[in-house]
Amino acid sequence: MLFKNITILDDNLEIKNDMYVLTEGDIIKYIGEKRPDGNFERVYDGRNKLLMPGFYNGHAHSPMSLMRGYGENLALQDWLNTKIFPFEDKLDGNAIYWGTMLSYAESLRFGIVSSSDMYYFMDEMVKATVDAGIKGNISRSIVHFDNSDIWSMPSMHEMKRSFEEYHNIEDGRIKMDMSIHAEYTSGPDAVLAVTEYAKENNARMQIHLSESKSEHEECKQRRNGKTPCQYFNSLGLFDVPTTAAHCIWLEGEDFDILKEKNVTVASNPISNLKLASGVCNVPELLKRGINVAIGTDSTSSNNSLNFIEEMKAFATCSKMYYCDPKAVSPTETIYAATRAGAISQGRDDCGIMKEGAKADLIVLDISGPHMHPVHDLKNNIVYSASGSDVVLTMVDGKVLYEDGDFLTIDIERTIFEAEKATKNILAQL
Amino acid sequence: MLFKNITILDDNLEIKNDMYVLTEGDIIKYIGEKRPDGNFERVYDGRNKLLMPGFYNGHAHSPMSLMRGYGENLALQDWLNTKIFPFEDKLDGNAIYWGTMLSYAESLRFGIVSSSDMYYFMDEMVKATVDAGIKGNISRSIVHFDNSDIWSMPSMHEMKRSFEEYHNIEDGRIKMDMSIHAEYTSGPDAVLAVTEYAKENNARMQIHLSESKSEHEECKQRRNGKTPCQYFNSLGLFDVPTTAAHCIWLEGEDFDILKEKNVTVASNPISNLKLASGVCNVPELLKRGINVAIGTDSTSSNNSLNFIEEMKAFATCSKMYYCDPKAVSPTETIYAATRAGAISQGRDDCGIMKEGAKADLIVLDISGPHMHPVHDLKNNIVYSASGSDVVLTMVDGKVLYEDGDFLTIDIERTIFEAEKATKNILAQL
Repeated sequence: MLFKNITILDDNLEIKNDMYVLTEGDIIKYIGEKRPDGNFERVYDGRNKLLMPGFYNGHAHSPMSLMRGYGENLALQDWLNTKIFPFEDKLDGNAIYWGTMLSYAESLRFGIVSSSDMYYFMDEMVKATVDAGIKGNISRSIVHFDNSDIWSMPSMHEMKRSFEEYHNIEDGRIKMDMSIHAEYTSGPDAVLAVTEYAKENNARMQIHLSESKSEHEECKQRRNGKTPCQYFNSLGLFDVPTTAAHCIWLEGEDFDILKEKNVTVASNPISNLKLASGVCNVPELLKRGINVAIGTDSTSSNNSLNFIEEMKAFATCSKMYYCDPKAVSPTETIYAATRAGAISQGRDDCGIMKEGAKADLIVLDISGPHMHPVHDLKNNIVYSASGSDVVLTMVDGKVLYEDGDFLTIDIERTIFEAEKATKNILAQL
Repeated sequence: MLFKNITILDDNLEIKNDMYVLTEGDIIKYIGEKRPDGNFERVYDGRNKLLMPGFYNGHAHSPMSLMRGYGENLALQDWLNTKIFPFEDKLDGNAIYWGTMLSYAESLRFGIVSSSDMYYFMDEMVKATVDAGIKGNISRSIVHFDNSDIWSMPSMHEMKRSFEEYHNIEDGRIKMDMSIHAEYTSGPDAVLAVTEYAKENNARMQIHLSESKSEHEECKQRRNGKTPCQYFNSLGLFDVPTTAAHCIWLEGEDFDILKEKNVTVASNPISNLKLASGVCNVPELLKRGINVAIGTDSTSSNNSLNFIEEMKAFATCSKMYYCDPKAVSPTETIYAATRAGAISQGRDDCGIMKEGAKADLIVLDISGPHMHPVHDLKNNIVYSASGSDVVLTMVDGKVLYEDGDFLTIDIERTIFEAEKATKNILAQL
C-alpha cells in the first residue's frame, strides 16, 4: 500500500510534508520524498492527512468494557465491593470474548494498535486478539490471599498454560506477559513464584504500583517501611522487564530503582483523575530518563479508549499538578503514546516511522476547523485533535479500521453480544 | 422539523427513549411519545441518536483561534509577552472576522450553540455571529492602565456604540455584554464607569476572577486585603448580572458574595490545567447553590472547543483535586454545560428541552462501540462520548451543522482566510 503526498511524523517525531510511504507485507518498506517505482495494490491519497505510528496502550483491562458506566460516582471501595467485584464474579468466557472485542473495536477506532492487558480468561482474550488482528501483550493477573501453595492455584496454571500455548503466536503479534496484580493482593511467595517463572521463560511483567495513597502507605506499614517499589525490588521482580502502571505516589529511592531497573511507567491520567487517585509525576520520570508510556486503564474507570484525549490529559495534568506550563511537551507526549509503549511491550521494531519497522500506522484527518491554523502541527495533534480524527488504523500492514468501517470485526454483532452478555450478568445479581 | 423515535434528555435531564420532538420556527413546539399530527418539512430518523440541548460556552475569546498552538509550552508571562501580545498588536478587522468564524465553525462542529465572548473589534465579531447563525453574548473587554479619563478611551466608545447598535439584534440571538477584563488590568474608575453603564442599560457583565494565584494574592496587597471578588463587590459590580470566569483561588467570604449576588461562575477546566492555573472548587460552588457554567477559554490556551471533552474534564478534575470520586455527577455536569450556561447569558428560554423553549438542539450519534454497553446513558455522554459524536447542531430551529457539512459557513474559505490572516500577522513580527 502506497501513501502518497502525505504529511508524516518521522522517526525523530519531526513533521515532513508531501511524503511517500510504502508498506509491504507487515513492514514499512520505503519512506521518501520521491514516488517509489512499481505498481501498488492500493494508493492512498494523503492530502490533508497525517500518517504516524499507531498508539501503544500501556495499561488496559479490555474485558471490563462491559462495566463501562456501571456504578459510577461512588467512592472507590463502594464501587469495587458493591458493583465491580459482584459483576466480575459472574463473568464467563463468552462475556470476556465480547467485552474484549468491544474494547478492540473502540481501540482501532481511536488509533490504538496494541494494548498491555491484565485480566483473566486467557483463552477468550487471546481468541479475540487473534480475530481482531490487533496486537496484545496479555497477562493473567495473579492474586494470592491465603496461605495455599502457589502452584495449587488454577490461576498459576492458566498463566503457564497460556504462555506455553500462545506466546508469540501470529508472528509475535500476540505476546503473553506475566502479572502480579499489586503489592496488596498477594504476598512474597506469589511474587517470587511469578518472577521465577518469568525469568525462566524470558517473559515480561505487568504490575500495578502505588496507584492510591492508601495502598502506598499501608504497604510501608506491612513491609517494614518499604514502599511498593522497594518491596518488589527486594524480591527481584524488576529483574524481569516490567511495566508498572500508575506510579503516582512514588517517593525518594523509588525513582532510582525504576531508572536502574529500566522499568517502564505506564501513566493513566484520566482514570487517575476520575478515581481521584492523584497525578503521576511524569516530569520527574522524564527528567531521569525513565521510559514513560501512556495507558487508558479500563473503560470502567476512564470511560473511553480515546487515546488522543488521553495524550492531552497526560500533557496538561502534568502542567497543572506541577505548576509548570512548560512541563511535558507535545513531542514527549507523542513519544510516550507510541515508541515508549512499543518498547514497554518488547516490540522494538514497532512504534516508529522507519523503513524496516512494523507497519502499525494510523492516519489522522487534519482538515477540520479545530486543526487550523497550523503554527506547529505537533501542538495541534496533542492539544486540538479529536479522537475521531483517526480515519485509518493499520496493524502489521493490514488496514483494520477505515472511515467508520471495521475490517476484521462485525461491529453490529459485537455491540449486540456485549450488551446481551452484560444483561445476562445483571440478571444474576 | 420532526425528530422521530429519538432518545432525549428531558427538562429534568432524565433519559426518555422513543420520543417525538417537533420544532416550529425557532422554538420547540412539541415533545411527546406520540407522533404529532400534520405534515412536516423534514422528518429526522432518531434511531441510535440522542437529542439534547446544545452547549452554552460560558467563557470564550473566539478570535484567538488564530493563535492556536502558537508559542506553546512557555511559562505564562513569556507566552503572553513574547507571543500573544505582539501577535494581538497586529490584529485587524479582517483577521478578527475570520478567526471568529473559524471558532464558530469549530463550535458548531462540537455542539456549541452560544458563547460568552470577551475581546475587541466588536463590528467584525458581530458580523461573524450574524453570518454564522450562532448565538453570542459579545463583550468589549475594558482595560485601563493609566490615569486618563475613562470616557476618553476609544474602547469605552466601542463598548457603548456596539451596545446601542447590536444589542438584541437578530431577535435576541446576539447580545452585547459589558466587560471589565480583570482586577489587575484596571483601577476602580474603570470598574465604576463600566458598572454604571451596565446598570443604566440593563446589560450583563463578563469578568476574569481569581484565575491565577499571583493575581489573587497581589490583589490583596494592592486593595487593602480585599480579594478580587471582595474588591469588585465593594465597587458594586456584582449588582450587574455577572459571569465570572475561572474563580480558582476563591477563599472564605468570596463564596458568600457570589451566592448572594447571584454571580455565575464559568469554569474552564482544560485551559486551567494547560496554563497550570489550578482547579476550580466546583463541588463547593455547587453545594452552595451557585450557578456554575462551563467555558472553553480561548483555543490558544485549550486548544480546542471540544465541549464533550470539556465536560469530562469538568467532572474528573473536580474528583481528583478534591480527592472524592463522588464529586460532580454527570447530571450536574450536563446541567452546567447547557441550562446553567444559558441562564448566565440571560437566555432564560434556552438550554432546556421543554415545549416553548428555543430550539437550540444537538444530536449525538450514540451507536459507536465506545458508547456501549448502556448502563446509564448519562454516564456515557459525559465520560465516554467523543466530541465528534455530535452529528447535528441546530440554533433557533435552524440546522447549522450536520454530518460534516456547515450550512451557514463556507468552511474551505474560512480555513483559507484564517490561515492567510495568520501568515500576514506572522510576517509583520
